[in-house]
Amino acid sequence: MKARVTVMLKNGVLDPQGEAVRSALGNLGFAGVEGVRQGKLIELDLADGTSEADINDMCEKLLANTVIESYSVELA
Amino acid sequence: MKARVTVMLKNGVLDPQGEAVRSALGNLGFAGVEGVRQGKLIELDLADGTSEADINDMCEKLLANTVIESYSVELA
Repeated sequence: MKARVTVMLKNGVLDPQGEAVRSALGNLGFAGVEGVRQGKLIELDLADGTSEADINDMCEKLLANTVIESYSVELA
Repeated sequence: MKARVTVMLKNGVLDPQGEAVRSALGNLGFAGVEGVRQGKLIELDLADGTSEADINDMCEKLLANTVIESYSVELA
């Protein structure tokens, strides 16, 4: 089975990487880019029968820093 | 308008970051993690009327390295 974990910085947490992308897009001549947030996408290839609770556990323990990041899990 | 750009390494391109996550999950006691690929998720806040062609252009010019990465764009 496959799972797709999305990790984004929480709202209100400064995202310097996104800010750099926004500024670079402006410098390349793209107008109208008002904001950019950059996060991580982690695709997991898991043994069948891995529970969603296990995946949440992986996120809490390793994949996301829950102090500043939020995550969501999508099973495929 | 919002757009969500997903950038992943192409199949066959070595992903050391994903490999490190796979190994760390194993060390934490999670069994059955067979593979991990890590990519980027970029959320763009754009002026209304930005065309999908413009967004593809941003991906080709800045957001993705199309030699080794593939991208997909989702409008929201």
